[in-house]
Amino acid sequence: MPSEFDLIRRFFTRPTRNTLLGVGDDAALVRPTPGTELAVSTDMLVAGKHFFPDVDPRQLGHKALAVNLSDMAAMGATPRWATLSLALPEADEDWLKGFAEGFFDLAERFSVDLIGGDTTRGPLNICVQIMGEVSTGMALRRSGAKPGDEIWVSGQLGDAALALAHLQRRIELAPEAAAACLPALHTPMPRVALGEALVGVAHGAIDISDGLLADLSHILEASGVAAEVNFPALPTSVFLQAHLHGEIVRGCLLAGGDDYELCFTAPLSRHEEVVAIARRLALPLTAIGVIREGSGLRLLDAAGTDMKIGATGFDHFAST
Amino acid sequence: MPSEFDLIRRFFTRPTRNTLLGVGDDAALVRPTPGTELAVSTDMLVAGKHFFPDVDPRQLGHKALAVNLSDMAAMGATPRWATLSLALPEADEDWLKGFAEGFFDLAERFSVDLIGGDTTRGPLNICVQIMGEVSTGMALRRSGAKPGDEIWVSGQLGDAALALAHLQRRIELAPEAAAACLPALHTPMPRVALGEALVGVAHGAIDISDGLLADLSHILEASGVAAEVNFPALPTSVFLQAHLHGEIVRGCLLAGGDDYELCFTAPLSRHEEVVAIARRLALPLTAIGVIREGSGLRLLDAAGTDMKIGATGFDHFAST
Repeated sequence: MPSEFDLIRRFFTRPTRNTLLGVGDDAALVRPTPGTELAVSTDMLVAGKHFFPDVDPRQLGHKALAVNLSDMAAMGATPRWATLSLALPEADEDWLKGFAEGFFDLAERFSVDLIGGDTTRGPLNICVQIMGEVSTGMALRRSGAKPGDEIWVSGQLGDAALALAHLQRRIELAPEAAAACLPALHTPMPRVALGEALVGVAHGAIDISDGLLADLSHILEASGVAAEVNFPALPTSVFLQAHLHGEIVRGCLLAGGDDYELCFTAPLSRHEEVVAIARRLALPLTAIGVIREGSGLRLLDAAGTDMKIGATGFDHFAST
Repeated sequence: MPSEFDLIRRFFTRPTRNTLLGVGDDAALVRPTPGTELAVSTDMLVAGKHFFPDVDPRQLGHKALAVNLSDMAAMGATPRWATLSLALPEADEDWLKGFAEGFFDLAERFSVDLIGGDTTRGPLNICVQIMGEVSTGMALRRSGAKPGDEIWVSGQLGDAALALAHLQRRIELAPEAAAACLPALHTPMPRVALGEALVGVAHGAIDISDGLLADLSHILEASGVAAEVNFPALPTSVFLQAHLHGEIVRGCLLAGGDDYELCFTAPLSRHEEVVAIARRLALPLTAIGVIREGSGLRLLDAAGTDMKIGATGFDHFAST
């Protein structure tokens, strides 16, 4: 079996663009851009919990980085550098090759340098840490929402959770529906360009990783405000729409997790700017409700009547 | 069982000193000091591989941070910020409390802020990422060693490996010897102040995590130089010295790993400065050999005769 050092060198050492000293010393060295703040986030993915142990390693490499890039997007930060730590039950070269390809394809798309990491034997575990830059004082925080703000979401919600429910045989999707939804689960595309565009426009922002209701609630709590969300306004795929009468599918939409879309609030006066951003990025942005004074989240049906809110999100310790 | 968010909030949210925005948003925000470069490193610790599953969680919290601080020391960087990701088989409050205490006691000693992290259910896995600062262009790299440099090590080598061999019943230490060596294994003290003091003095540096021979070899390869090391000069405890005739104990000294001392090279002209640093820090620094032109590492006995070099270090994939 090749040694740890051989494996790291072969698959995870690539030329860097924005880095003074990359993989291979006790630490990497980077030079942050003057006038910026550094945004730092990390996510750990565990086999059987965040992904199926037999998932395509290429997709897993993509997703491990994507979920971290999504955190940068939610801050309005431009991702720059990442570290990757891997615990592997065995040093499977094919697996590592696929994982590295998926990881680097996405990293290169966003000009992110892999600058360090660690590899060890152990139950499969992937820990990525990401660093990005945002102009001083301009980061999008969860605490910025203000009464009167419109609430927006990007893309479509629920497809990833729908695909997961299909794979877990909790629902059954037609083959074309499954094919359309699975990429949302396996290879989500982080909304980095949207986050950057929202700097100076949005008040509060979060990425939807634990489900719309849970993540919007984080904005409400951090900002000390309430929200009204119009259920019929929620952007969904036609595939999800077709099953929307069912309890499970409603759960996918509201509390499914793994969307990696952005939820943000912006003053009504910036409505046209948000619409222009959507057009420029060719990314649907949908106003789904409004921020109010007070606390709590109301979900309203087409008649404006309160809907009962059940499961409120996805908690890695509370759920199975 | 408390939710993930409750656990994180309770044990891992503490006031920060050098941080704009800490735990609780999509990313933390920090402002690097102008005129510095950012040193970034990460280490992943796996139960059964890097520590015994029943280790005192307080010691584990200390060690998980200490091994990362040691990487900062090896770069001459001042550690500033850390993230912590934990996979836990269960949300054991006592365990988390102890782990957090060990982690934060060491973090506070070095004014390091914990700025983010992730907690999930899974086989026990600890991933820490550390960021530090070093004046532009002044970091200690592995590649800086030059022919004629003296080779130095801090502290004493081999005690941690000796303690591990004792716990694994490969050797038997007298109770007082075990008591003296175990702290080196469980609660190593990273040589941060030494690393800072060596900026502008040392040429090449590394921390000894995989054993002296392996880690010094990394300096030699990165610098394109050779080394002569005087075996009798290696600094050891009296406990290790007492067993030094045995093969296992020699292995502890040369290739044991987990020392977390610094190995560095400095020009002969800076000898007195290094001695003065040792005095100021009350930390033994020992000249153990010299850098030569060429490649490879020679280990010399008291008569200046080449000694046979067996195991050359500690590789997480090659060793068990």
